[in-house]
Amino acid sequence: MNEVIQAEWVGNMSFESEIDGYQLHFDAEEQFGGTLRGYRPKPVVLSALAACTGMDVVSILGKKKVKFSTFKINVTGGISEGYPKYYKKIHLVYQFTGPGFQDDEEIRTKVNRAVRLSRDQYCAVSAMLKNSCEITDEIILMDS
Amino acid sequence: MNEVIQAEWVGNMSFESEIDGYQLHFDAEEQFGGTLRGYRPKPVVLSALAACTGMDVVSILGKKKVKFSTFKINVTGGISEGYPKYYKKIHLVYQFTGPGFQDDEEIRTKVNRAVRLSRDQYCAVSAMLKNSCEITDEIILMDS
Repeated sequence: MNEVIQAEWVGNMSFESEIDGYQLHFDAEEQFGGTLRGYRPKPVVLSALAACTGMDVVSILGKKKVKFSTFKINVTGGISEGYPKYYKKIHLVYQFTGPGFQDDEEIRTKVNRAVRLSRDQYCAVSAMLKNSCEITDEIILMDS
Repeated sequence: MNEVIQAEWVGNMSFESEIDGYQLHFDAEEQFGGTLRGYRPKPVVLSALAACTGMDVVSILGKKKVKFSTFKINVTGGISEGYPKYYKKIHLVYQFTGPGFQDDEEIRTKVNRAVRLSRDQYCAVSAMLKNSCEITDEIILMDS
Protein backbone atom coordinates (compact mmCIF):
# COMPACT_ATOMS: atom_id res chain seq x y z
CA MET A 1 0.00 0.00 0.00
CA ASN A 2 1.24 3.44 -0.88
CA GLU A 3 0.68 6.84 0.65
CA VAL A 4 0.93 9.72 -1.81
CA ILE A 5 1.22 13.34 -0.76
CA GLN A 6 2.17 16.51 -2.57
CA ALA A 7 3.86 19.72 -1.50
CA GLU A 8 3.55 22.78 -3.70
CA TRP A 9 5.81 25.79 -3.69
CA VAL A 10 3.71 28.91 -3.02
CA GLY A 11 6.41 31.58 -3.26
CA ASN A 12 9.51 32.57 -1.35
CA MET A 13 10.35 29.61 0.97
CA SER A 14 6.75 28.52 1.51
CA PHE A 15 5.23 25.17 0.69
CA GLU A 16 1.67 23.99 1.00
CA SER A 17 0.78 20.35 1.55
CA GLU A 18 -2.47 18.58 2.34
CA ILE A 19 -3.32 15.34 4.13
CA ASP A 20 -6.92 14.05 4.19
CA GLY A 21 -8.14 17.55 3.36
CA TYR A 22 -6.14 19.23 6.15
CA GLN A 23 -3.61 21.76 4.95
CA LEU A 24 -0.06 22.11 6.24
CA HIS A 25 1.70 25.33 5.46
CA PHE A 26 5.48 25.26 5.79
CA ASP A 27 7.87 28.18 5.91
CA ALA A 28 11.51 28.82 6.78
CA GLU A 29 12.95 31.15 9.38
CA GLU A 30 14.01 34.63 8.31
CA GLN A 31 17.72 33.72 8.56
CA PHE A 32 17.05 31.13 5.84
CA GLY A 33 15.09 33.47 3.59
CA GLY A 34 11.60 32.71 4.87
CA THR A 35 9.03 34.64 6.88
CA LEU A 36 8.18 31.89 9.40
CA ARG A 37 4.50 32.04 8.47
CA GLY A 38 4.09 28.30 8.82
CA TYR A 39 5.67 25.19 10.25
CA ARG A 40 9.39 24.63 10.08
CA PRO A 41 9.69 21.11 8.57
CA LYS A 42 12.25 19.70 11.01
CA PRO A 43 10.37 20.19 14.31
CA VAL A 44 7.21 18.92 12.59
CA VAL A 45 8.94 15.53 12.60
CA LEU A 46 9.24 15.74 16.40
CA SER A 47 5.53 16.58 16.72
CA ALA A 48 4.64 13.67 14.42
CA LEU A 49 6.84 11.35 16.48
CA ALA A 50 5.14 12.44 19.72
CA ALA A 51 1.65 12.04 18.25
CA CYS A 52 2.49 8.66 16.70
CA THR A 53 3.88 7.08 19.85
CA GLY A 54 1.25 8.91 21.93
CA MET A 55 -1.57 7.26 19.96
CA ASP A 56 0.03 3.84 20.44
CA VAL A 57 0.34 4.38 24.17
CA VAL A 58 -3.26 5.65 24.51
CA SER A 59 -4.49 2.62 22.58
CA ILE A 60 -2.46 0.11 24.60
CA LEU A 61 -3.36 1.68 27.95
CA GLY A 62 -7.03 1.64 26.93
CA LYS A 63 -6.80 -2.13 26.40
CA LYS A 64 -5.09 -2.46 29.80
CA LYS A 65 -7.92 -0.39 31.43
CA VAL A 66 -5.50 2.27 32.65
CA LYS A 67 -7.43 5.54 33.03
CA PHE A 68 -5.32 8.69 33.18
CA SER A 69 -6.34 12.32 33.65
CA THR A 70 -3.72 14.06 31.51
CA PHE A 71 -0.98 12.86 29.17
CA LYS A 72 1.72 15.03 27.65
CA ILE A 73 4.83 14.12 25.72
CA ASN A 74 7.82 16.42 25.75
CA VAL A 75 10.29 15.89 22.95
CA THR A 76 13.79 17.32 22.91
CA GLY A 77 15.75 17.11 19.69
CA GLY A 78 19.48 17.60 20.08
CA ILE A 79 20.80 19.02 16.84
CA SER A 80 23.97 17.61 15.27
CA GLU A 81 27.12 19.60 14.54
CA GLY A 82 27.90 20.28 10.88
CA TYR A 83 25.55 19.52 7.97
CA PRO A 84 22.89 18.30 7.66
CA LYS A 85 21.68 19.74 10.99
CA TYR A 86 19.35 16.96 12.07
CA TYR A 87 18.30 15.61 15.47
CA LYS A 88 21.07 13.22 16.36
CA LYS A 89 19.52 12.62 19.79
CA ILE A 90 15.82 12.65 20.57
CA HIS A 91 14.53 12.37 24.11
CA LEU A 92 10.87 11.65 24.83
CA VAL A 93 9.33 12.34 28.25
CA TYR A 94 5.93 10.68 28.71
CA GLN A 95 4.10 12.54 31.50
CA PHE A 96 0.87 11.21 32.95
CA THR A 97 -1.34 12.36 35.78
CA GLY A 98 -3.98 10.15 37.33
CA PRO A 99 -5.42 9.36 40.75
CA GLY A 100 -2.72 7.80 42.95
CA PHE A 101 -0.42 7.37 39.94
CA GLN A 102 2.80 8.52 41.59
CA ASP A 103 3.29 5.47 43.81
CA ASP A 104 1.25 2.90 41.88
CA GLU A 105 3.69 0.22 40.76
CA GLU A 106 1.06 -1.63 38.72
CA ILE A 107 0.29 1.51 36.72
CA ARG A 108 4.02 2.14 36.26
CA THR A 109 4.57 -1.37 34.93
CA LYS A 110 1.68 -1.03 32.48
CA VAL A 111 2.83 2.38 31.26
CA ASN A 112 6.40 1.11 30.87
CA ARG A 113 5.16 -1.82 28.85
CA ALA A 114 2.99 0.41 26.61
CA VAL A 115 5.94 2.73 25.89
CA ARG A 116 8.19 -0.26 25.10
CA LEU A 117 5.59 -1.78 22.76
CA SER A 118 5.22 1.51 20.91
CA ARG A 119 8.96 1.96 20.58
CA ASP A 120 9.80 -1.58 19.54
CA GLN A 121 6.74 -2.75 17.62
CA TYR A 122 4.17 -0.17 16.60
CA CYS A 123 5.43 3.38 16.17
CA ALA A 124 6.10 3.94 12.49
CA VAL A 125 7.70 7.35 12.99
CA SER A 126 10.15 5.91 15.57
CA ALA A 127 10.96 3.10 13.14
CA MET A 128 11.85 5.61 10.43
CA LEU A 129 14.05 7.74 12.71
CA LYS A 130 15.76 5.26 14.99
CA ASN A 131 18.57 4.26 12.63
CA SER A 132 19.72 7.87 12.31
CA CYS A 133 18.68 9.32 15.66
CA GLU A 134 19.38 7.96 19.12
CA ILE A 135 15.94 7.90 20.74
CA THR A 136 15.68 7.70 24.53
CA ASP A 137 12.69 8.02 26.81
CA GLU A 138 11.53 8.41 30.37
CA ILE A 139 8.17 8.17 32.10
CA ILE A 140 6.86 10.55 34.75
CA LEU A 141 3.76 9.63 36.74
CA MET A 142 2.09 12.22 38.95
CA ASP A 143 -1.05 12.28 41.08
CA SER A 144 -3.99 14.21 39.69
CA MET B 1 21.33 23.43 20.33
CA ASN B 2 18.09 21.76 21.27
CA GLU B 3 14.60 21.95 19.86
CA VAL B 4 11.85 21.28 22.40
CA ILE B 5 8.28 20.57 21.45
CA GLN B 6 5.29 19.18 23.33
CA ALA B 7 2.28 17.15 22.29
CA GLU B 8 -0.71 17.00 24.59
CA TRP B 9 -3.42 14.38 24.60
CA VAL B 10 -6.78 16.09 24.08
CA GLY B 11 -9.09 13.09 24.32
CA ASN B 12 -9.77 9.94 22.34
CA MET B 13 -6.80 9.54 19.91
CA SER B 14 -6.19 13.27 19.45
CA PHE B 15 -3.02 15.17 20.22
CA GLU B 16 -2.30 18.85 19.98
CA SER B 17 1.18 20.20 19.37
CA GLU B 18 2.51 23.67 18.63
CA ILE B 19 5.55 24.98 16.77
CA ASP B 20 6.39 28.70 16.80
CA GLY B 21 2.79 29.45 17.79
CA TYR B 22 1.28 27.34 14.97
CA GLN B 23 -0.87 24.48 16.16
CA LEU B 24 -0.82 20.96 14.77
CA HIS B 25 -3.78 18.79 15.58
CA PHE B 26 -3.23 15.06 15.12
CA ASP B 27 -5.85 12.33 15.01
CA ALA B 28 -6.07 8.67 14.04
CA GLU B 29 -8.28 7.03 11.45
CA GLU B 30 -11.59 5.50 12.60
CA GLN B 31 -10.23 1.95 12.19
CA PHE B 32 -7.64 2.86 14.87
CA GLY B 33 -10.15 4.44 17.24
CA GLY B 34 -9.84 8.03 16.05
CA THR B 35 -12.15 10.40 14.20
CA LEU B 36 -9.63 11.67 11.62
CA ARG B 37 -10.18 15.27 12.68
CA GLY B 38 -6.54 16.14 12.23
CA TYR B 39 -3.31 15.01 10.66
CA ARG B 40 -2.27 11.38 10.69
CA PRO B 41 1.30 11.47 12.09
CA LYS B 42 2.91 9.19 9.51
CA PRO B 43 2.09 11.09 6.29
CA VAL B 44 3.02 14.32 8.07
CA VAL B 45 6.60 13.03 7.90
CA LEU B 46 6.30 12.82 4.10
CA SER B 47 5.00 16.40 3.94
CA ALA B 48 7.84 17.58 6.18
CA LEU B 49 10.36 15.75 3.98
CA ALA B 50 8.96 17.40 0.84
CA ALA B 51 8.97 20.86 2.42
CA CYS B 52 12.49 20.41 3.84
CA THR B 53 14.11 19.31 0.60
CA GLY B 54 11.91 21.76 -1.34
CA MET B 55 13.25 24.70 0.67
CA ASP B 56 16.83 23.55 0.04
CA VAL B 57 16.21 23.29 -3.69
CA VAL B 58 14.50 26.71 -3.86
CA SER B 59 17.41 28.25 -1.99
CA ILE B 60 20.10 26.61 -4.13
CA LEU B 61 18.32 27.40 -7.41
CA GLY B 62 17.94 31.02 -6.26
CA LYS B 63 21.72 31.24 -5.85
CA LYS B 64 22.15 29.69 -9.32
CA LYS B 65 19.70 32.28 -10.77
CA VAL B 66 17.32 29.60 -12.02
CA LYS B 67 13.83 31.11 -12.25
CA PHE B 68 10.97 28.62 -12.38
CA SER B 69 7.21 29.21 -12.70
CA THR B 70 5.89 26.33 -10.59
CA PHE B 71 7.47 23.69 -8.38
CA LYS B 72 5.72 20.69 -6.90
CA ILE B 73 7.07 17.67 -5.09
CA ASN B 74 5.14 14.43 -5.17
CA VAL B 75 6.07 11.95 -2.47
CA THR B 76 5.08 8.31 -2.50
CA GLY B 77 5.63 6.28 0.65
CA GLY B 78 5.57 2.53 0.14
CA ILE B 79 4.46 0.95 3.39
CA SER B 80 6.29 -2.06 4.80
CA GLU B 81 4.74 -5.46 5.48
CA GLY B 82 4.28 -6.41 9.14
CA TYR B 83 4.83 -4.06 12.09
CA PRO B 84 5.72 -1.29 12.46
CA LYS B 85 4.04 -0.17 9.22
CA TYR B 86 6.47 2.52 8.13
CA TYR B 87 7.57 3.82 4.75
CA LYS B 88 10.25 1.40 3.67
CA LYS B 89 10.54 3.11 0.28
CA ILE B 90 10.03 6.81 -0.37
CA HIS B 91 10.04 8.23 -3.88
CA LEU B 92 10.28 11.97 -4.49
CA VAL B 93 9.30 13.51 -7.82
CA TYR B 94 10.51 17.10 -8.23
CA GLN B 95 8.35 18.77 -10.90
CA PHE B 96 9.22 22.17 -12.28
CA THR B 97 7.72 24.31 -14.99
CA GLY B 98 9.54 27.24 -16.52
CA PRO B 99 10.05 28.89 -19.91
CA GLY B 100 11.84 26.45 -22.23
CA PHE B 101 12.66 24.12 -19.32
CA GLN B 102 11.87 20.85 -21.04
CA ASP B 103 14.88 20.82 -23.37
CA ASP B 104 17.23 23.10 -21.45
CA GLU B 105 20.23 20.98 -20.48
CA GLU B 106 21.80 23.76 -18.41
CA ILE B 107 18.65 24.06 -16.29
CA ARG B 108 18.51 20.27 -15.95
CA THR B 109 22.10 20.12 -14.74
CA LYS B 110 21.48 22.86 -12.17
CA VAL B 111 18.28 21.27 -10.90
CA ASN B 112 19.99 17.88 -10.68
CA ARG B 113 22.81 19.42 -8.70
CA ALA B 114 20.39 21.21 -6.33
CA VAL B 115 18.48 17.99 -5.63
CA ARG B 116 21.75 16.11 -5.02
CA LEU B 117 23.01 18.79 -2.62
CA SER B 118 19.76 18.71 -0.67
CA ARG B 119 19.79 14.92 -0.45
CA ASP B 120 23.44 14.51 0.45
CA GLN B 121 24.29 17.63 2.44
CA TYR B 122 21.44 19.82 3.62
CA CYS B 123 18.10 18.14 4.11
CA ALA B 124 17.74 17.27 7.78
CA VAL B 125 14.54 15.28 7.32
CA SER B 126 16.19 13.12 4.63
CA ALA B 127 19.15 12.59 6.95
CA MET B 128 16.85 11.31 9.69
CA LEU B 129 14.94 8.94 7.40
CA LYS B 130 17.54 7.61 5.00
CA ASN B 131 18.96 4.89 7.23
CA SER B 132 15.52 3.29 7.62
CA CYS B 133 13.85 4.24 4.34
CA GLU B 134 15.17 3.81 0.82
CA ILE B 135 14.75 7.28 -0.68
CA THR B 136 14.80 7.68 -4.46
CA ASP B 137 14.04 10.66 -6.61
CA GLU B 138 13.39 11.87 -10.13
CA ILE B 139 13.16 15.27 -11.75
CA ILE B 140 10.56 16.37 -14.30
CA LEU B 141 11.02 19.63 -16.20
CA MET B 142 8.17 21.03 -18.28
CA ASP B 143 7.67 24.18 -20.30
CA SER B 144 5.42 26.81 -18.75
